[in-house]
Amino acid sequence: MDYVLRQGANIQPASKPAALDLQGFFAPKSLALVGATEDRSRFGGKVLHRLKHFGFNGPFYPINPSAQTVQGLPCFSSLRDLPESAEHVGIAVPTKFIFDVLDDCAATGVRFVTVFSAGFTEAGDTEGLERQSRLKAFVDKTGIRVMGPNCNGFVNFVEGLAFTSSGTVTGARSAPGNIGLVSQSGGAAQVNVMWRAQELGLNLSRQVSCGNCADLGVLDFVSYMVDDPHTDVIMVLVEDFGRGRELFEVAKRAADREKPIIVLKLGRTEAGSRAAASHTGAITGSDAVHDAVFKQCGIIRVNDCNELYERAMMFRRKKLPNGRRAAALSISGGNAAIIADLGEHLGVEWPRYADSTQAGLAKILPLHGRATNPSDVTSAVVGKPDVLRNCVDIIAADPNIDVVIPTLTFAVRSDVDQAVASIETCEKPLVLLWTGGCGDQPDFKARQLIQAGVPVYRDALACLRSVKDAMSYGEFLRARKGREVVRRPQGIDLKQAGLILRNNAGVLGERESKAFLKAYGFPVTEEYLAKAAAEAVAIYRRIRGRVALKIESKQILHKTESGAMRLGIEGAENIARAFDEVIGAARSYAPDAALDGVLVQAMAPAGAIELILGIAPDPTFGSAIMVGLGGVHVEVLRDVSFRVGPIGIDDAHSMLRELRAYRLLEGVRGQKPVDMAALCGLISRLSWLAVDFADEIDELDINPLFVYPQGQAPCVIDALVTTRQRVAAT
Amino acid sequence: MDYVLRQGANIQPASKPAALDLQGFFAPKSLALVGATEDRSRFGGKVLHRLKHFGFNGPFYPINPSAQTVQGLPCFSSLRDLPESAEHVGIAVPTKFIFDVLDDCAATGVRFVTVFSAGFTEAGDTEGLERQSRLKAFVDKTGIRVMGPNCNGFVNFVEGLAFTSSGTVTGARSAPGNIGLVSQSGGAAQVNVMWRAQELGLNLSRQVSCGNCADLGVLDFVSYMVDDPHTDVIMVLVEDFGRGRELFEVAKRAADREKPIIVLKLGRTEAGSRAAASHTGAITGSDAVHDAVFKQCGIIRVNDCNELYERAMMFRRKKLPNGRRAAALSISGGNAAIIADLGEHLGVEWPRYADSTQAGLAKILPLHGRATNPSDVTSAVVGKPDVLRNCVDIIAADPNIDVVIPTLTFAVRSDVDQAVASIETCEKPLVLLWTGGCGDQPDFKARQLIQAGVPVYRDALACLRSVKDAMSYGEFLRARKGREVVRRPQGIDLKQAGLILRNNAGVLGERESKAFLKAYGFPVTEEYLAKAAAEAVAIYRRIRGRVALKIESKQILHKTESGAMRLGIEGAENIARAFDEVIGAARSYAPDAALDGVLVQAMAPAGAIELILGIAPDPTFGSAIMVGLGGVHVEVLRDVSFRVGPIGIDDAHSMLRELRAYRLLEGVRGQKPVDMAALCGLISRLSWLAVDFADEIDELDINPLFVYPQGQAPCVIDALVTTRQRVAAT
Repeated sequence: MDYVLRQGANIQPASKPAALDLQGFFAPKSLALVGATEDRSRFGGKVLHRLKHFGFNGPFYPINPSAQTVQGLPCFSSLRDLPESAEHVGIAVPTKFIFDVLDDCAATGVRFVTVFSAGFTEAGDTEGLERQSRLKAFVDKTGIRVMGPNCNGFVNFVEGLAFTSSGTVTGARSAPGNIGLVSQSGGAAQVNVMWRAQELGLNLSRQVSCGNCADLGVLDFVSYMVDDPHTDVIMVLVEDFGRGRELFEVAKRAADREKPIIVLKLGRTEAGSRAAASHTGAITGSDAVHDAVFKQCGIIRVNDCNELYERAMMFRRKKLPNGRRAAALSISGGNAAIIADLGEHLGVEWPRYADSTQAGLAKILPLHGRATNPSDVTSAVVGKPDVLRNCVDIIAADPNIDVVIPTLTFAVRSDVDQAVASIETCEKPLVLLWTGGCGDQPDFKARQLIQAGVPVYRDALACLRSVKDAMSYGEFLRARKGREVVRRPQGIDLKQAGLILRNNAGVLGERESKAFLKAYGFPVTEEYLAKAAAEAVAIYRRIRGRVALKIESKQILHKTESGAMRLGIEGAENIARAFDEVIGAARSYAPDAALDGVLVQAMAPAGAIELILGIAPDPTFGSAIMVGLGGVHVEVLRDVSFRVGPIGIDDAHSMLRELRAYRLLEGVRGQKPVDMAALCGLISRLSWLAVDFADEIDELDINPLFVYPQGQAPCVIDALVTTRQRVAAT
Repeated sequence: MDYVLRQGANIQPASKPAALDLQGFFAPKSLALVGATEDRSRFGGKVLHRLKHFGFNGPFYPINPSAQTVQGLPCFSSLRDLPESAEHVGIAVPTKFIFDVLDDCAATGVRFVTVFSAGFTEAGDTEGLERQSRLKAFVDKTGIRVMGPNCNGFVNFVEGLAFTSSGTVTGARSAPGNIGLVSQSGGAAQVNVMWRAQELGLNLSRQVSCGNCADLGVLDFVSYMVDDPHTDVIMVLVEDFGRGRELFEVAKRAADREKPIIVLKLGRTEAGSRAAASHTGAITGSDAVHDAVFKQCGIIRVNDCNELYERAMMFRRKKLPNGRRAAALSISGGNAAIIADLGEHLGVEWPRYADSTQAGLAKILPLHGRATNPSDVTSAVVGKPDVLRNCVDIIAADPNIDVVIPTLTFAVRSDVDQAVASIETCEKPLVLLWTGGCGDQPDFKARQLIQAGVPVYRDALACLRSVKDAMSYGEFLRARKGREVVRRPQGIDLKQAGLILRNNAGVLGERESKAFLKAYGFPVTEEYLAKAAAEAVAIYRRIRGRVALKIESKQILHKTESGAMRLGIEGAENIARAFDEVIGAARSYAPDAALDGVLVQAMAPAGAIELILGIAPDPTFGSAIMVGLGGVHVEVLRDVSFRVGPIGIDDAHSMLRELRAYRLLEGVRGQKPVDMAALCGLISRLSWLAVDFADEIDELDINPLFVYPQGQAPCVIDALVTTRQRVAAT
């Protein structure tokens, strides 16, 4: 059942043209609204009202069969009666009429449709699901691109068009900014993000609320904004990306253009997923995997709506710090301490100033000894704007400093102006933290500065989080420039691997799983299947050394639990006895199981560190790979790390570094470090396997993988592969 | 050196009268300001200006030897010239004149002094330290109580007195609220907290910026507010509590009165400690220990200034949730999903509604199936305030629900009013989350509601964090009612333990440390010291079973490293050989070490879980106890938990539950749980030991402690005690 849902989420139109042109969507040559009404308390009346007051340059046609005029505009009874074809049509009619209107759209050469009306998957009933399928079929047949259903339209501040019922857009168009916003949600995005951002003084380029995403999805609009010259920062509030794999491609293009994508992903928790599902019928997918993908793609993740625009305020200036080294200065010592704490906690560094900086500061400040960073510049600078500005400029010129945060509490206007002057002229990114008001001009507020383009924060944590995210994004962009090309590893026998998989539909036992992995280039234990005790002894002699004996049966997957295994056996007699014991234990554990024999396996050398590697299915991204240390680390401490493949050696290493137990791999208490290159190579290999066999493999567990210090090859000790056929059958 | 600092922090006036009466401090019968000036750009001029405009009812005397009048008020040349004794005197004069003014205070019967002037410990130089000592000596000699130095005074909204230079108090007194604020900092507290809270619509009772705390400290003012009938919530922004042990007493009285204390503690990180030290010369102490103490005391900890008043907004109504079960309802599905996510992440529960609630909702909402929680009530309620209010009231009446969060985005005034009506009338705590504006009355804002006493949040995370903290505080208050009395454990031979400690000044070796712990009631391994091989054999025969042999020498503390130990030996011949080997290894590891003999020790039974227990010194609280699992858990994963003693069994258990590896103690993979009662008993015992020998013991390590399933006693395998004499000597 679980799988059916997941599969459902995977069944998405597989590929779209790389650069879908949505210009006609956002700024159509002509526009129509079916369901336009006089009554402004109804949806169609609201949309019409917003549209009229916001201002739209092109011809606009209200459609309503039972009115001559609506809100003072001449009204048409049907799309078929229009003097020209509408490029974009909005539909705000009762659910039962939608498909009639869509037929009219197809008949009159409409290119884009926004279906505002609800009654689709979000309803959670059969009719809703059927309606949404029918809508998809309409898109496939006609080529008309549809936003929605169950959506609240969009606002285009650039060319000028509000096509939404939202109460946040009741007046004339405000000036466009360079921040875009894409969401499935209406209210949360339009109120909590768009309106609140504008209240703060931040202007947007475009805003989209795309609802259930039957056709056009979140990624289509993000992709458009990546190409949009009017948008420099993209905020996304998303329940379900849908075609998750496309996210990699869109994010890559965004990184090429150095346009940050900031995401608030809903459905992180079970309660959130439930709420999201009842909202747009979205399947939200595993949160840990989303986290991993965002890291891989350089996407900035936030936790609440206000954080979207708080980050955007930092990013919209397109000045990124060259490193993590920050400086702050304040006339309030308490603020210096708060900033120091929060910054260090987030991973911001506060380096010592260079000697030249100290010398410069000593000339203008009454310093006792060296200035610390963050700097308490004391009240010596209050009301002496030239001193404040000089301090900021001296610190900003320090070669050890990547970003400066002048911090004001209560300030006179001239202090604020001088801090802003430094911010505006400096090559480096500077942000103003202004926690209080303006002493001599109480009406002068942060909002005016923000509207003028200055990044101004009122709270230290929001400020430092934004600074830290800008540092991380800068690091991401720099790292990807020198980054390895992720290449398919050598030594993969794809044909053989595929053969093993297809010959063993369902679950692959230990021996078959390891044979599969071996064909894929993984080192595995030497092992052979014995059908009789004598054969076990012969194998033992061939292997030379102590062996393990394990039952081989498709019906006994949990060998430890069954007791049908013996470890570290030597001597012919003991081997023979162990063979009989294993068979005996298997029979009493599962009397009806078909026993294929006993696997006789070379014991791996001692001194290994045990890891667990795996592939897990994911509803959004197809599958994800996982790594963790064996024993308590995965099972009790849940200390694991995810990625979506394929990944290279660098990514594999960063995946390991995320583990809390990473230091164990580096060697503690005098132990040698493990062969990190070999381990990362296997992780990369696994990530390719996950991609190559995405359609065949549901889950794969390597448990344990033994890794050793350099010079000793790692070894797969046990493994289990579950294919999709098996899952589909249950 | 490190210790000298710590000791310095400990040297504080040890005990004060339990209820220090500061009424004369906050509302003196008469007030004087030495250093009052005409010039409003100077400190004394600012203080005078604030005071005049804020309004003070009693007689006020500006003092300035070189002026006849200041700011229109008659001026006196000295305190000695006043017609009456000033109950409270503020000093804002250059540092060199301070002590002359203080002499005048002593001569004229002044009770309280606020020293605004700087130039003390915060300067970081010898003169500053000396000045602060001299100020303390003045207090001890005269009994005059002093706030400061290096402080920015206080604001009393209740009786009406602003005695501060802060630019946040330039007009007439605003109405008093029931929220108090104590800080060392001036700017951060007065601007980031007080002014910002007022900007939001929250009024304060009193605000104090007590600076370096040479005499009156943060805890004195918190203590006063605990008793103050005008204060119901206490916000604290603190760098150093000073006499940390008093915090327990003050917090206990606050809990008795159900007055929450909300703390922003500076100096959490190294950078923050550095910045705090340069601000008020404070030593900030270990952050993990502060965290533990706050948990023990029910103190709510926050991370940034705005979070102080955001929490206070929730608490000032004095309605606490009876549990963690919340409900939320919104017309925005996106908001419902965001709230669900953030709440679950914080530990808020979203239970299913009772059948009666479902039935009630079904009558007024167009529901498909059951309503989820958080509830997306769709736009059916928009503009129908009776429906919204009915929904809120039905949900609030649900017996499964402890707190309700009606959530509005853009709303018409009548919607807001109806939500507020529910909040005002409901017995349970309800909070409004209102992310947008007022559709029909754009000037109607959250501020008006907050001023009227309604808790209104604009962001989901701030809202849910406040709700969660209220839940936790309610839990804390309920738990302490039924809580065990923390009693001294049985079986402590204090005399014997003290004797061992004093006979072994410096470091106690393994044998002495274990003898000390045994006298304190800890089960330890059976062991005896052998001076010769034959004696070792005799001991082995007495112990019966395998033994360990370990070198005993004050000069060899790291036995594993020295190689001078053998484990699990049996047979007389092997014992004798092992004895010689241990002596040999010790001699080659440390040729000059004095060898006391070889410790022959019973091997503990197999199957133990290893723990590490310890006592670490703390600059604020004297010492703290620590517990963690042995091996990688403490050493690599830093998975440890702290408390300040004495604690009982319940606290010991909660300490263990904080460990990420706690499940290992409960038994995983079919293992039996450890004897939790025995383990918690030992932790409690250790916490008493830490208190009893606070002056003698610097550090104590029990590493490892073996614990077993019920029926098998735990056992101290190795231990090491470092006394303060040893530390003082290095």
